Amino acid sequence: MVNDSGWFTEIYPQHGSAFSFKVIEKLAEEQTPFQRIEIFETEWFGTLMVIDGCTMVSDRDNFLYHEMMTHPALYTHPRPERVWIIGGGDCGSLKEVLKHPDVKKAVQIEIDERVTRLAEQYFPELCASNGDPRAELLFIDGIQWVKDAAADSVDLIIVDSTDPVGPAEGLFNEAFYRECFRCLGAHGILVQQSESPLFHAGLIEAMHQTMRGAGFADTRSLFFPQCIYPSGWWSATLAGKTVLAGFREADARAKPFETAYYNAEIHRAAFAAPEFFRALAVNP
Amino acid sequence: MVNDSGWFTEIYPQHGSAFSFKVIEKLAEEQTPFQRIEIFETEWFGTLMVIDGCTMVSDRDNFLYHEMMTHPALYTHPRPERVWIIGGGDCGSLKEVLKHPDVKKAVQIEIDERVTRLAEQYFPELCASNGDPRAELLFIDGIQWVKDAAADSVDLIIVDSTDPVGPAEGLFNEAFYRECFRCLGAHGILVQQSESPLFHAGLIEAMHQTMRGAGFADTRSLFFPQCIYPSGWWSATLAGKTVLAGFREADARAKPFETAYYNAEIHRAAFAAPEFFRALAVNP
Repeated sequence: MVNDSGWFTEIYPQHGSAFSFKVIEKLAEEQTPFQRIEIFETEWFGTLMVIDGCTMVSDRDNFLYHEMMTHPALYTHPRPERVWIIGGGDCGSLKEVLKHPDVKKAVQIEIDERVTRLAEQYFPELCASNGDPRAELLFIDGIQWVKDAAADSVDLIIVDSTDPVGPAEGLFNEAFYRECFRCLGAHGILVQQSESPLFHAGLIEAMHQTMRGAGFADTRSLFFPQCIYPSGWWSATLAGKTVLAGFREADARAKPFETAYYNAEIHRAAFAAPEFFRALAVNP
Repeated sequence: MVNDSGWFTEIYPQHGSAFSFKVIEKLAEEQTPFQRIEIFETEWFGTLMVIDGCTMVSDRDNFLYHEMMTHPALYTHPRPERVWIIGGGDCGSLKEVLKHPDVKKAVQIEIDERVTRLAEQYFPELCASNGDPRAELLFIDGIQWVKDAAADSVDLIIVDSTDPVGPAEGLFNEAFYRECFRCLGAHGILVQQSESPLFHAGLIEAMHQTMRGAGFADTRSLFFPQCIYPSGWWSATLAGKTVLAGFREADARAKPFETAYYNAEIHRAAFAAPEFFRALAVNP
């Protein structure tokens, strides 16, 4: 909701804090069968998408999230040719995935078609690669998609979802991770957004344990700044069918595309675990 | 100011955004000769100090700032025995500095004694080392202190100040950096908080140029999350009389003290420059 002074605020009730954006105007508002989507033009962050009151993506800082959800996992897998993106309806992760020439097929499985249609209208730069012949956009339930898929049918699964409440809740449990494990080929990797290291360390710890319980041999979290998400500090967690030690550093150094945040040094840096994080049961 | 619903908000007017804390009660408020200091008890961040409306330090996340303002520079200098902290009145940086057994003398030069007296009362854990015989607390102008000091009288100068407006403005110019350069011994290092990489990249770029203009041979920025500062992403910039390549990694790995964020991997990671940062004129 925008107040009388033109501010949109997302409150983090469990963490006694809130982040606000100065809004120029509301560009769109829709109640879909799944959620309420709002699009704002803001003063500094450019266009902003909000889903069920939670900020999802802004022009100004989405590069951090989309680059870090994709390139570290893509440059860890030895040869990622088949990629699924579960969620990711704004198409920003898809755009980053398709920057990799080795990727032969990228399927985006977003449950809510309206997220993508609004992104096409209001975030055209994120959707710039939607017409790539390697891209396929499906608007179905990602959990069902993974259940129905054949074993060894994907190299990298990117779970680019909302928070683990509401529609995305089923993407954070062992049953889902087991199906992902089954679908992944040799050296397959699952990477999932895993909330704030400052606000949700317990959730990240539980994710590691659940992923390992589902059969993954190795799990690692990476960290990056994300101004518009709670605490301004975010994480992604990788689960590998084999040990996640295979950073293709020479390829990352010679990456044939531009980024704004990611590079080979940032790749290594992002996996450095803060001292408090090492104390968690994330590497049992 | 706390609104009717019990929220304290800091607005970042130039960046169309704001961060808010749910407040339980205001514990103190003082107008000193230099600034207005407020202390709040918050719902999740513990005790919070605010100066002239800007959030300075909270129980919950100050470890990030204080560890990253001190340990990377201390483990870069080959033998930091003499340390000055300009500003730093909450004593959190002093406490981290004194964790290093090699440090023989740490002088904190804070212009506003009330910051320290209120910290002693409301942030006792940050002031736990104020009685260390190696510590000296002065309440005088840091700029004058540096001007009056002898050449080669310090190994590491930590500028732990407020933003480059108001009382701290004179800590961000070439004249001040030249005096620091003069006071530093061989391999001397100056480290200064340098604002947000997302919001103030131009300021960081200008700092590098000004530090080099003042005679420093090398400058490098490091990055860390800081939830309560604008954008949630912060930086410190080091200026060295010689090349800043001497990370004492073995010493950092064997550090004889506890930290919550810093470790040897985080040290290396913090200096990794994002792709957009490399495009700035920070390494002329």
